[in-house]
Amino acid sequence: MEIFAVDGIGEVGAGDDVAAVVTRHAELRAGDVLVVTSKIVAKAAGLVTRRPRDEVIAEETDRVVARRGPTAIVRTWHGLTMAAAGVDASNVASGSVVPLPRDPDAEARELRARIRAATGLAVAVIIADTAGRAWRVGQTDMAIGCAGILPVQTFAGQTDAHGNPLVVTAPAVADEVAGAAELVSGKLGGRPVVIVRGLDPALLLADDGPGAAVLVRAEGQDLFGLGAREAVRAAAVRGSRRGFLDPTDDWAVVDDLIAAAEVAARREGGRVTIDAREDPVAAGALMERLRAVAFAEGLELAVDVRR
Amino acid sequence: MEIFAVDGIGEVGAGDDVAAVVTRHAELRAGDVLVVTSKIVAKAAGLVTRRPRDEVIAEETDRVVARRGPTAIVRTWHGLTMAAAGVDASNVASGSVVPLPRDPDAEARELRARIRAATGLAVAVIIADTAGRAWRVGQTDMAIGCAGILPVQTFAGQTDAHGNPLVVTAPAVADEVAGAAELVSGKLGGRPVVIVRGLDPALLLADDGPGAAVLVRAEGQDLFGLGAREAVRAAAVRGSRRGFLDPTDDWAVVDDLIAAAEVAARREGGRVTIDAREDPVAAGALMERLRAVAFAEGLELAVDVRR
Repeated sequence: MEIFAVDGIGEVGAGDDVAAVVTRHAELRAGDVLVVTSKIVAKAAGLVTRRPRDEVIAEETDRVVARRGPTAIVRTWHGLTMAAAGVDASNVASGSVVPLPRDPDAEARELRARIRAATGLAVAVIIADTAGRAWRVGQTDMAIGCAGILPVQTFAGQTDAHGNPLVVTAPAVADEVAGAAELVSGKLGGRPVVIVRGLDPALLLADDGPGAAVLVRAEGQDLFGLGAREAVRAAAVRGSRRGFLDPTDDWAVVDDLIAAAEVAARREGGRVTIDAREDPVAAGALMERLRAVAFAEGLELAVDVRR
Repeated sequence: MEIFAVDGIGEVGAGDDVAAVVTRHAELRAGDVLVVTSKIVAKAAGLVTRRPRDEVIAEETDRVVARRGPTAIVRTWHGLTMAAAGVDASNVASGSVVPLPRDPDAEARELRARIRAATGLAVAVIIADTAGRAWRVGQTDMAIGCAGILPVQTFAGQTDAHGNPLVVTAPAVADEVAGAAELVSGKLGGRPVVIVRGLDPALLLADDGPGAAVLVRAEGQDLFGLGAREAVRAAAVRGSRRGFLDPTDDWAVVDDLIAAAEVAARREGGRVTIDAREDPVAAGALMERLRAVAFAEGLELAVDVRR
């Protein structure tokens, strides 16, 4: 497998045809994977703006996932979890910002179709952007849009050479290709198009495929949909359950709290009765604790306090 | 940049010299990055075991980060956040499991030194393993150990072609290389060694460098050190603050809760006084809510309840 940046792309502006720019500077071959930064796709789509950065970030934000000082990690309308909603001020004219493309999978499909129309070649396309990771320092590029490539390869049902089933193994191929491309594109600008040649044909698709949207962990399937601190705040005020895992039906955590409590309480199904006669303040505390945890678990809990 | 798997490695067993196995099958060149799976490093170190998987996972676990049904995402003693602590049952004899290498950076340094001793060549070494991501479907390979390569490249102090500062940009080079290598190694076994040739020499180091340990977000710097649900449970029982962000000194969240409360309360510094005379149950609930949130924020809070 070979990975190389395309030289001479130069500055891309609103209305530019990215497919034409690429085919003018690169000798594509069938089976190539073309990795383009989201930046040039957004620039070509005319999304560069001089509006205030905070305003653009707010527009791109579906909900805040975690905040620390001036940094907000948000879930965008695309479902991507990124700092500043992917709104970037690098590699654009000073004072400008650029959000992510509106529909990166559609942009990838369109770019692929235009390249096929211009050259007759079946290539795959990945639109790449940069994101931090929950538990790792630094960023890697990931695929926010793709066409003609398997976003994720699944081995469910297959076995390794020792006969062990490969149930959970599912390499995020498109993300790994995007990260590999970053290694040759560089962050100092000017090389926003990379070609990956010689990728295993089993990872390519004749049709456009499902796109990078399938790489997004769905809301409610995500164990880390809120930062640890934000989750506690959300449970305390019990506003929206977004960012929490889908409801469970496991009452063990409630029962554990009841067992450890200093006041008498018992649960029957989804109803807990707390005896507040001896210590009403402690009863109120237990009520609050149970309600917060039930909220986080998605349990339908009613609490009666006997005064 | 070229990426290719080394053929003919075959099965690696306890006591095997990985450097000798590699140099026997690959024509290395100076500046190559050698990416080896953690699996063969662990096998060579004799870590394959027939002991119960759960027991091995428990030994590798520093603390549980999030749990969902049978899946536990844990922080290992290395600081890696991974499902099942990286203990794997694939590509080993059926009934066996293998944990991660004890000290992957040390193993990478040793492998690099042995290859230099055998061939005179300066190569970089990455020990790769597979991990899921908080917000993305599928897994990518990452560098759990490395030597001779920049784990993360920092652009702080540099500007792009438009003069914009690249403050936060810090590509996790070693992780991107590990992910790229996964694309050619395959999960069905037999190709656990990959060579990345032609990586930008600016990303290579003459010395071993800091290793992949610097890619681990430190405990207390991590916004997602606990799953959303687990964070609420932890705040409810107020056991250990591990997994939460370092303490803040921002009392806004406490003041917001006091302002929204249905009972009278006021804060002076780190002390909140709640008037419980009218509604002691509600006062207890507010006390609990404030304590849970203060715990999550790391605030030293005393609550007085006036009865």
